[in-house]
Parts: sequence; C-alpha cells; structure tokens
Amino acid sequence: MDAISVIRTKRDRGELSDAQIDWVIDAYTRGEVADEQMSALAMAILLNGMNPREISRWTNAMIRSGVRMDFSSLPLPTSDKHSTGGVGDKITLPLAPLVAACGAAVPQLSGRGLGHTGGTLDKLESIPGWRALLSNEEMMDVLRGAGAVICAAGDGLAPADKKLYALRDVTGTVEAIPLIASSIMSKKIAEGTGALVLDVKVGSGAFMKNLDDARELARTMVGLGTTAGVNTVALLTDMSTPLGLTAGNALEVRESVEVLAGGGPADVVELTLALAREMLAAAGVHGKDPADALRDGSAMDHWRRMIAAQGGDVDAPLPVAREQHVIPAPASGVLTRLDAYAVGVCAWRLGAGRARKEDPVQAGAGVEMHAKPGDTVVAGQPLLTLHTDTPERYDYAIAALEGGIEVAPAGTAFTPNPIVLDRIA
Amino acid sequence: MDAISVIRTKRDRGELSDAQIDWVIDAYTRGEVADEQMSALAMAILLNGMNPREISRWTNAMIRSGVRMDFSSLPLPTSDKHSTGGVGDKITLPLAPLVAACGAAVPQLSGRGLGHTGGTLDKLESIPGWRALLSNEEMMDVLRGAGAVICAAGDGLAPADKKLYALRDVTGTVEAIPLIASSIMSKKIAEGTGALVLDVKVGSGAFMKNLDDARELARTMVGLGTTAGVNTVALLTDMSTPLGLTAGNALEVRESVEVLAGGGPADVVELTLALAREMLAAAGVHGKDPADALRDGSAMDHWRRMIAAQGGDVDAPLPVAREQHVIPAPASGVLTRLDAYAVGVCAWRLGAGRARKEDPVQAGAGVEMHAKPGDTVVAGQPLLTLHTDTPERYDYAIAALEGGIEVAPAGTAFTPNPIVLDRIA
Repeated sequence: MDAISVIRTKRDRGELSDAQIDWVIDAYTRGEVADEQMSALAMAILLNGMNPREISRWTNAMIRSGVRMDFSSLPLPTSDKHSTGGVGDKITLPLAPLVAACGAAVPQLSGRGLGHTGGTLDKLESIPGWRALLSNEEMMDVLRGAGAVICAAGDGLAPADKKLYALRDVTGTVEAIPLIASSIMSKKIAEGTGALVLDVKVGSGAFMKNLDDARELARTMVGLGTTAGVNTVALLTDMSTPLGLTAGNALEVRESVEVLAGGGPADVVELTLALAREMLAAAGVHGKDPADALRDGSAMDHWRRMIAAQGGDVDAPLPVAREQHVIPAPASGVLTRLDAYAVGVCAWRLGAGRARKEDPVQAGAGVEMHAKPGDTVVAGQPLLTLHTDTPERYDYAIAALEGGIEVAPAGTAFTPNPIVLDRIA
Repeated sequence: MDAISVIRTKRDRGELSDAQIDWVIDAYTRGEVADEQMSALAMAILLNGMNPREISRWTNAMIRSGVRMDFSSLPLPTSDKHSTGGVGDKITLPLAPLVAACGAAVPQLSGRGLGHTGGTLDKLESIPGWRALLSNEEMMDVLRGAGAVICAAGDGLAPADKKLYALRDVTGTVEAIPLIASSIMSKKIAEGTGALVLDVKVGSGAFMKNLDDARELARTMVGLGTTAGVNTVALLTDMSTPLGLTAGNALEVRESVEVLAGGGPADVVELTLALAREMLAAAGVHGKDPADALRDGSAMDHWRRMIAAQGGDVDAPLPVAREQHVIPAPASGVLTRLDAYAVGVCAWRLGAGRARKEDPVQAGAGVEMHAKPGDTVVAGQPLLTLHTDTPERYDYAIAALEGGIEVAPAGTAFTPNPIVLDRIA
C-alpha cells in the first residue's frame, strides 16, 4: 500500500477500498503519508467525490485514530448539537444550559473561529476567568454539576481529523461534502454522545450556499450518525442574514444571557427552542417545555453553574471594545438585505475573528445590528454599530459591507426567510 | 494574492490570471507557498486543465524562476532533442554525437530515471570515469571540442520546475498534460537551444498511452516552443514494445555503441536517423546525410571525443551484472507481444532503475531481448536474459512480465507498429 496508488485511485474517479482508506488515515496520522500527499488526495476527493461506503469508512478510520469518550456512567441521557457555522451563531451558549435544565446532559466539545464564522470557545473566553481547556475528569465534574459543559476537544479525540482539518484550511479543500461530513461526525461520534442534532446552515454566511448542497450534507451526516448508533437529526436553517443582533465575541455572550433571562431577539429564541426540542426528543427526554425553562430561570441557573464551574466570573462586566462607529441607514424604507457573509467578514476584520489559527481575537470587537431584514428604517438612523480596539481598520472592515445592505422603498412587500427551512431525520 | 484563492480559482474550474500564475510560481520557489498547497493546485490542474494562455504563462514563470543559458557565442547552430521517456530508449546516446558529426551543436541537458523508464545520465554513468555534473565552462568546452555534450542540468535552470517535478512525483500529479508540457519546455527553453525535436512516446511503456493524448501533449509543447522562438518539431513514436534489444544502463550503452559502429537493431537505427534528420532540418543545417555519418565513423569519432571530454574511458570494458537468468519462449510461433511496460518494470526491479531519487542504480542490471514482436520463436529458445547483481529479486522481477509476452501460432499474420506514428510541427 502506498500513498500514490491511493491518490491515483481517487484521481482517476475510482472507489477507494476499505483497506486503502484505513491505511491512508492511519499512515497520515503517523506522519508516513506526507501533508502534500494528503492535500492532493483531499483535492481529488473534493473534485471526484466519495460514495456513502467510502465516507462511512473514512469517518470510522478517523474515529479509530484516537480515543472514544464514554458518558455511560452519567445518570442522564446525553444529547449534543453541532452547527456547521454561521454569522452571529451564538446558539450553543443558551442552548446547552437550556437542554440541561430540561433533563438531558449536554457534553459539548466546541471549536474556535476561523474565517468569517465565529467560534463558540472564542465567545465564551470573553467571560473573565473562563477556561476552555479541561481534563476529562474536570469535564465530567462540570457535566455532573451543571448538566452541561462546553469545552475544547482534547488532543486524543480523532487526531486524524485535527491534522486533516488544519491541512484542508490552507489548501482550498474545505468545501467538500464528504470531508466536511466525516470531519464533523468523527468528532461527534468519538465524543460519545447518545443523541445529536445537526444545525446545517444554508445561505451566504454558511459553507453551504444552497439548499440542495445543505440537504446532501445533512443526509450524509444523519446517515453516518445513525449507522454509528447515535440518534441523529438535522435541521436546515437560514444563514442569509446573521442570527440575532450581534456578531462578535462578548457582544454575542451578552445577547445569549438576554435569551437565558427570557428576552433576546426573536430569531435566536426561536432557533434555540427548536434545537432544544429536537435534542430532548432525540435523547428520549420528555416532560419539561424548554420555553418554560427560559421563563422560570432554570436555564439561567444552569448557565451560571456551568460558567462558574469552568472558572468564569458570571457577574463580571463583559469586555467592551475601545471604539465604536455608527453606520447609518443609507435610505428610508424596508431593509431587504443585511447579508450574513458581509457582516461576518466585517466583524472578522474588526478583530472578532482570526486569519491564522495562532492569531488572538478581540473580545469586544464585532458588529451590533439595529435592524434586521423586514424592518422599516429611516435614512440616517443607526443601522449598525461597529466595535473594535483597532479603529485603523474601520475602512477595511466597512469595505466588507459593500453590496451587503439594501433598503427598498417603503411599502415594498418583503418576507424574511423562515429560520428553520427543513428537517432531515 | 494568496495561495488559497489561486487554488480555489482552479478548483472551481476558473482560469488562472497572469498575475496569479506569476505569483504562485515565484512564491512557491521562495517557499512562501507550501508543498501541500502546490500539490492541491497540481491536482486541481490535473483534473480541471489549463488553457493555452495559462500553460504558456506557467511555463514562462518557471523559466523566469532561474537563469537562461546562451549558446550564441558558438559558431554552429544548436539543436536538441527531448524524449518523454520510454523503455530501452537510449536514442540520445548515438543521436547527440551523430548530429554533431553532421554540423549542428547539441547541448543536451538530461535527467535520471525514475520509475520504469531509464535515465540518460544513469546509462552514461555506467562508463567508467564519466561525469554528469559539469560547470557551465566545462559544458561549453565539451560542446566546442566534441560538438555535443550530455550532462545534468544545473541547479540554476528553472528551479521552480525542479521543485514542482519532485513534488508531482510523490503526489500522483505527474500525468497532467499542462504540467508535463510546461515542465519539459521550461527546461528546454531556459537551456537556450535554437531548435528542438520532441520525441513523444505513445504506448504501454510511455506516459501517454494513446495517440490522442500524445498529440495533445505534442501540440502543446510545439506551441510553447514556437512562441518562445525555438524552432520546435515533434515526432510521435511507438512505445508499445521496448526500443532495441536492451533495457538497462550498461546494456544500452553497448547497444548505442553498436549503432555508432554502423550496426545495431533496426528500430534504434531508424529512430536515431529520423530524429537526426529532424534536428538538422530544424537547425537549418543541410549537407551531410546522418546515415553516412554512421557508416563513415564520424559519429563514432564524436562519441569518443564527447565521452572522453567528460572523463569517460571509452575503451574500458562496461560493467556486467553478477548473474544472468534466461527466460525461454513459452511456445513456438510468432511473438506478437513483448510489452514495453512489463519489460521496463522487470528491468527496474532487477536494479536498473530506482524507486526513490536518492537510490543507486546497478550499472549492469537489465533485460536483454532475443526476439521482438513479429519474430518467429521456438518453444524453449532463449527469449529474454535477465541481468542483475541481486538475484534474490528474480521472482519479483519475473512477476512483472506476467501478461506481457504473447506467442501466436506460426503463420499468424502480425504487423509490428511503425516506429514513427505522426509528426507535429
């Protein structure tokens, strides 16, 4: 078995055998297959595809490259959520304690942001003292005490995926459905959750720009999860405009706390509840309505316990960026477009995101939105507030908004997209 | 400009701009674009192609990555040949001194073998004392004294190609016509020859397995050469069976000397003369018939001067492998198949070639053929003699011949392929 013959098989539109897949993932993890060989293979997979058997085998080989976690000692069923990433997507923050408050344990291993989509860990790290890195014992302790834990995945979990993900990021091979699906599902299956709800984003701010691609990705992932014995459901949700009214780390924590306090933007509340109901149903937990847990303070109580258990000071003020800059509405009428990708890139350039994985992020940076598509605006009213510690980059950040904002004459009929577009089980 | 955007352009079936091509070749040469990025781009080029403008720009960028040679101080026009590589292809050895004997100077920068095709430098290094590495001054001295020189290309010539060639070799991205054409032509144009004849091999022992692919490669290279002001012609020649009766380093030197002495196998003589006539015509040299130069000893005289000028002892006995093993004809009748790829792999496994570029080769190893397709054979008569210093690998070498030899009943009509299949100018 050698790397070139595996690459050639896929290059020439052949099917990779089980033995080829097992060998190439193992040899890549051990460093015997070089990065330049794996990136050529990744490009061949991106352009020539993989069938369901190949994707399943590839996923299992990545799981077997590391350890598997086991939550069977917990008294509660486990349920987790994964989002394919969007702009303003802070849903994990209110969702994990909410589901815990309703009776399922949520072991959420999260990532950092790269590119225009934010990362859950970056957001939580804007809370003074909060730690993303936990030992397995600490993780179990937080989970037992708060019912939910959000932390970084350990090095032992699917190391092949970790290595391949970093490689794909610099070689233009991210946007391949077989590689996206196997990357997500290898981590989630290795994580050992009993139930999994996938939030597959569709639209300008997501990897998947159209419904057909998103459906294919969702079906692929649901198939992988089900085959592995994880009760898996996917919601396809809109990412044509940002979720909520903030994109940025501390800004999104603030908005998440508003939701946990029973308030917050309607779209964030709607999606949080939809995902919570799916997570509870998938875990076989019935009884408490998540909407009640937002109203009665029990979700907030789980949030405070979870954050405190990881060293976070829940009462400390959140960081605020050094400077703010208001973007006014360009005309009066109906806001018909506030593009997710444009806002995401703007927030990223303001300092909320990173260009390379070793870069720091600014806790306070980001975009605050004062209107959403469908809202009526008056020329000159504040439309966006940009937050940053590095105001010298305002021009560069504002340039990202070009073409991303449209106001139609008052009275123009406009119906915003629904949040949940489809459900795949 | 960044590597990922260049990769994405080609991945998504776009055209690379001149600026993208110039940047990526320069940045790769300087190490700013990483190997894993270039291999992903190479795979995208292999699968999605390049148009003539892109290939031309890519070639020029590789030329500009290094120095260009200049033979304008020579009193004679220069003419060179390049073969895309085949089994038993020793043609450069008799051809260079033959063309020199007829009045054109031949500055031949050659390579080493990798895989089942042999390398001209490996062959010549079986001559005791012969040196492949020359300084530019030494190269000009040999060229002035012998009219021809065959040596290794210096590090300064198209360094981008050198780096890319090594990368393609380990990433399954060799078989891309735009990359093959630009690799060959960047070196030949940088070498500074005035005329160039391309020997594009077609058949099982060649990179190009069918005439259509070979024609496309030939047309692409002729176009690149002509645009660069090099008078370029291509012959498409048969590589379904090995050239001549030997495949292996010293074995092929011996056969080449037979040709220079006015003998040798008919196919080697025919192709040597066809290429010599093209090289002379392309250089505008008329007068002496190459067939006369083989008969009158002038080609042999130039060979002896050329080899001696590079330290080679032309009268020393050539190395002989420690052991020989005869493969008999499996049946009586007409030999209808002696497959070039099978013989090439067999010779390679016997020790004539290398698996990695740092491996040594055995000077004496290889395959001697006692019949060629179209010949009548008798069951049990010697068909091949295998030569090696490592007889423990006989079984492995013989396994390569499986399916490569066919004998049809006596009287079966069989016409071997012509040597020259087509000409592209």
